[in-house]
Amino acid sequence: MRKVFQAELQSIGEELVDMTARVGHAMQQAWTSFATADTELAQEVIAGDARIDFLQNQLDERAIDVLALQGPVASDLRMIVGSLRMSASLERMGDLARHIAQLTRLRFPEPVVPQRILPTFEKMAQLDVAIATDLGELLQTRDLSVASRIIASNERIDELHASVFRIVAQPDWDESAPTTADTTLTSRYLERYGDHGVSVARKVSYLVTGEWDPAAAVDPRAV
Amino acid sequence: MRKVFQAELQSIGEELVDMTARVGHAMQQAWTSFATADTELAQEVIAGDARIDFLQNQLDERAIDVLALQGPVASDLRMIVGSLRMSASLERMGDLARHIAQLTRLRFPEPVVPQRILPTFEKMAQLDVAIATDLGELLQTRDLSVASRIIASNERIDELHASVFRIVAQPDWDESAPTTADTTLTSRYLERYGDHGVSVARKVSYLVTGEWDPAAAVDPRAV
Repeated sequence: MRKVFQAELQSIGEELVDMTARVGHAMQQAWTSFATADTELAQEVIAGDARIDFLQNQLDERAIDVLALQGPVASDLRMIVGSLRMSASLERMGDLARHIAQLTRLRFPEPVVPQRILPTFEKMAQLDVAIATDLGELLQTRDLSVASRIIASNERIDELHASVFRIVAQPDWDESAPTTADTTLTSRYLERYGDHGVSVARKVSYLVTGEWDPAAAVDPRAV
Repeated sequence: MRKVFQAELQSIGEELVDMTARVGHAMQQAWTSFATADTELAQEVIAGDARIDFLQNQLDERAIDVLALQGPVASDLRMIVGSLRMSASLERMGDLARHIAQLTRLRFPEPVVPQRILPTFEKMAQLDVAIATDLGELLQTRDLSVASRIIASNERIDELHASVFRIVAQPDWDESAPTTADTTLTSRYLERYGDHGVSVARKVSYLVTGEWDPAAAVDPRAV
């Protein structure tokens, strides 16, 4: 029983790693579609998100199967419950990449946001992709220095998100109100993606150490 | 064992109902603080959110304890896993109420958004509060007509959210870019609250019927 159980648990871990790769790829593609007004690529992201949603449901079902084996000890249960939380966060990261792709399609053939804000969003998107890659590594290695790197990336994203509001508040920001609204939403999507990444990283840290990483205990959403 | 288990399961149900009441109250207060620029009330919402987060953690711990009893049959497991998903959605609803209270404090003594948009947001906030109330009823009665009402409320919220973008796009919208950004974020927060409510309603429907309600199966985020 124990052996079957361990194999199932490992399989859940592999599915989580697969999800990190998919949501990272989704954000990479969503960003490229956004920056280049490529609706075909945007459509790929939107279609691909259904697959991520499917994987989350599959992982839920597997977790229920594992629980039904009645082998789990307390630490295993924590792992399984933690996995359910992680898959939910990863699924949201996929949604946020999809939202960015949807904005691309909605505004086509116009770009969604003005050229001058693109470098800021580019940095945010690349940090988001780096967080997804780091999450895959963290899940596989359980090396907590990777968790710290994820938290640092998210702090940088929060700073960039704050800087977007400063740019918008400058007197030379003469964009239309709908463009300001789209700029705000894009920034929010890119910022939330990082928050969800931190949630996953905190959960892994908790499962490894049994306590919340103090550096990670600061709620990123409070910033 | 079975008796202990049933009592624990009922207790989880009661905690979920308690959370619906708290997040409904939080949104009610957050909206009042927002509409009247009442920072004291806003502070109450912000402080109260820590309690909601605590309740979610407590519910998680209880769920793990129940799983460790090793009594659960498959349908019970589904209920417990479903409860974990519901508590996560409810916790996010609390966060969104907090975000609205935080905007109130950030812009004080100025109102966050112009007067003319308030009636739209007022409707959205009241629908959000109604969704929270309905969730409490749905959890207690499992009456699926309440789930349909929640879905209908959320559809109305989505329409109002879309109307905000139309208002912002009108030529007579002469607000500053930061005000447009705040208006966009407020609308997004009010809209997301309803989405999370629908997630909970769908989960309850699924647990009651064993299948997704077709009317609920439409992803509200795709709208």
